[in-house]
Amino acid sequence: RDRVRALVDNDTFQKVIIGVIIVNAVVLGVETMVPEHLAHELALFDSLLLGVFVVELVLRLVAYGPRFFLDPWNIFDTAIVAIALVPATGPMSVLRALRILRVLRLVNSVPSMRRVVDGLIAAMPGMGSVAALLVLMMYVAVVISTNLYGEIAPEYFGDLGTSAFTLFQTMTGEAWPDIAREVMAEDPSAWIFFVVFILVMTFAVLNLFLAVVVSGMES
Amino acid sequence: RDRVRALVDNDTFQKVIIGVIIVNAVVLGVETMVPEHLAHELALFDSLLLGVFVVELVLRLVAYGPRFFLDPWNIFDTAIVAIALVPATGPMSVLRALRILRVLRLVNSVPSMRRVVDGLIAAMPGMGSVAALLVLMMYVAVVISTNLYGEIAPEYFGDLGTSAFTLFQTMTGEAWPDIAREVMAEDPSAWIFFVVFILVMTFAVLNLFLAVVVSGMES
Amino acid sequence: RDRVRALVDNDTFQKVIIGVIIVNAVVLGVETMVPEHLAHELALFDSLLLGVFVVELVLRLVAYGPRFFLDPWNIFDTAIVAIALVPATGPMSVLRALRILRVLRLVNSVPSMRRVVDGLIAAMPGMGSVAALLVLMMYVAVVISTNLYGEIAPEYFGDLGTSAFTLFQTMTGEAWPDIAREVMAEDPSAWIFFVVFILVMTFAVLNLFLAVVVSGMES
Amino acid sequence: RDRVRALVDNDTFQKVIIGVIIVNAVVLGVETMVPEHLAHELALFDSLLLGVFVVELVLRLVAYGPRFFLDPWNIFDTAIVAIALVPATGPMSVLRALRILRVLRLVNSVPSMRRVVDGLIAAMPGMGSVAALLVLMMYVAVVISTNLYGEIAPEYFGDLGTSAFTLFQTMTGEAWPDIAREVMAEDPSAWIFFVVFILVMTFAVLNLFLAVVVSGMES
Ligand code: NA
Ligand code: NA
Repeated sequence: RDRVRALVDNDTFQKVIIGVIIVNAVVLGVETMVPEHLAHELALFDSLLLGVFVVELVLRLVAYGPRFFLDPWNIFDTAIVAIALVPATGPMSVLRALRILRVLRLVNSVPSMRRVVDGLIAAMPGMGSVAALLVLMMYVAVVISTNLYGEIAPEYFGDLGTSAFTLFQTMTGEAWPDIAREVMAEDPSAWIFFVVFILVMTFAVLNLFLAVVVSGMES
Repeated sequence: RDRVRALVDNDTFQKVIIGVIIVNAVVLGVETMVPEHLAHELALFDSLLLGVFVVELVLRLVAYGPRFFLDPWNIFDTAIVAIALVPATGPMSVLRALRILRVLRLVNSVPSMRRVVDGLIAAMPGMGSVAALLVLMMYVAVVISTNLYGEIAPEYFGDLGTSAFTLFQTMTGEAWPDIAREVMAEDPSAWIFFVVFILVMTFAVLNLFLAVVVSGMES
Repeated sequence: RDRVRALVDNDTFQKVIIGVIIVNAVVLGVETMVPEHLAHELALFDSLLLGVFVVELVLRLVAYGPRFFLDPWNIFDTAIVAIALVPATGPMSVLRALRILRVLRLVNSVPSMRRVVDGLIAAMPGMGSVAALLVLMMYVAVVISTNLYGEIAPEYFGDLGTSAFTLFQTMTGEAWPDIAREVMAEDPSAWIFFVVFILVMTFAVLNLFLAVVVSGMES
Repeated sequence: RDRVRALVDNDTFQKVIIGVIIVNAVVLGVETMVPEHLAHELALFDSLLLGVFVVELVLRLVAYGPRFFLDPWNIFDTAIVAIALVPATGPMSVLRALRILRVLRLVNSVPSMRRVVDGLIAAMPGMGSVAALLVLMMYVAVVISTNLYGEIAPEYFGDLGTSAFTLFQTMTGEAWPDIAREVMAEDPSAWIFFVVFILVMTFAVLNLFLAVVVSGMES
């Protein structure tokens, strides 16, 4: 076990793994641009690289034993590799497209990027209550708009899911005037809903930002 | 009265109320998705849950007496429940859609969310003067644009209300180029109005944000 | 002179003026909503209120003498009233629409709003150099885009003014994909211009915001 | 050499150069607005001004010797002038449009603007890791969307470059609802991709801003 740990902690070993990740990223990008038969060969090469990651994970598991699973980054690496081992057929074919997520293993391997992500994750608890409030207000707005405008504009507010998507678009400041004018043609008072929704959500999102900034300054 | 207060301050009692609120939120969401006759039965169940809230409010009123009304959150809870008791017929039918606002009672019941909202409310006085200035500048822009472009583009600037809605859309950065190009086809100098309006309002909103950030940092 | 100054500094006198400003704002708003003959009568009433402002300005000028012009707010008040005295005919008819700017005199009369605007104005010198840089970069982008795309898409980049308006729209994040795709149909490399322009300007505007925030924190 | 240095460091000399830069900026702007034969004469005048810049660069090179190249601003000035000396014919004709970049020499010549740009550049290393993370996540999203939606909506996700442009537009909050609704007509679950992409990127960009603000406050 000590010799395995010496290997996986070795600087050259880690640089090789980073290299393999980058090569893998390029391969998956190139695969989208080449004719069918070349894509097939690249897929074989991709399987080979996946094999390297599996071996590396096993070595790290051997080296660290159960402690391996204490580091959330290791769990992330394992999940990313495991996705690729699920047979990507039928309803699971979307998983093929997720192979590129392996590139995110770079974050774990490059200390300066890892610090940034650790910072982002550390900022999250400070945002928890504001985020919960946002979700709550969003749910209220979704139910109200489905009730009020579901029959007037079913393509935008036909059911809870459709309304949620429409209101998410409105929050990104996109296309809402068209939607609002269409609804207002039937229900002239609908401007009240849109204006209140935008003002309240903007104010709440602003405070979410503020929470992040303040917690960022403290650290 | 002491025994009533012991009841309403009891942890289990409060958890039950939180549970009832969440069940109520789910019921009102599901109601939008089911066939008519099931929606009717859900509405009956909703009335039952409303009964629970009325009883809870009465108990808290009995427990605390007139002091009950000193806490603005209690007034909010009472208003939310009172809305549901107004017969939602004719022009009042919009009130049916507002029943979901009861979910916001969660904010009062969950301490961490209550702190966030208390923080938002505490930030408001610091924003008061900037907000008043924004409203004043908005009013000036609404009257100017109605006078200048009311006849050129009545669908956007036909009267004060329409202009206010158009300029609110412009502030959210939405669809203004189409509107501006339509007006400029008749009055080529209209770009001056739009550019000045966007620059001044953006600068003012930025300062509103700044006021919130600074007051947020102080606390 | 002392008695005049006692009058204009009198609390009641100032409250009357604030009242007249608010009445004037309402009159100018109502004027847009009434039939022609009523609008005519309201215009007469508006002239009467203008008379009040002229008398007030003269009294303050008498009370303070030349020192009156040392306060930029007084110059602002004088300019606002002077606009209304220019005969608003022919090319000057746009001045009629600017009468509503008189409402901004409220800012001078209400101390808390005056502090906000004084704060905004105090923040401007700290923004000067960044703003100059923004204007410089905008000019560069306007000349480049007019040269490169003036013949491909004359409705967006036909001359310096048109390009400036198009790029200002792009900075507000509005409608640029349509414009970019139209230009890219002729010149596929045009995405470089748009992406560089948006990234550079966003970064510069962000720093303008930062300058305002930092100068706001220091005060 | 000392006399040359005295000349280039002379205040009047530097003011003359600033004047020449501004005249050059105006000339290049006017050139876009005049008929062909006048544009030709302005181009000759522009060549003359370019000659002035070449002479000035040579003088500064003589005055400072090899040390000249230690200041990145001098390298920038040299590059800007060198662009203009490349014959702008055939594929290089785009370089003609870049002559206006010479105006950016103003930044080097005006101390207050130079400080702003030095500040921007100083803020960049602090942003490096976050920017690298953004690029990494963007690459992941580009490959995933090309794989998933390349055949459904080839005009938006046909190859890596097209997907990158579409996702850049989505990040600027522009036109994404149209794109999303078109893709969702074929693949109803596509909303997951768009919502996750927007939330993750917004959160990451927010943290990029935060990094700039914090590093700006420290300096
Ligand atoms: Na937008
Ligand atoms: Na937009």
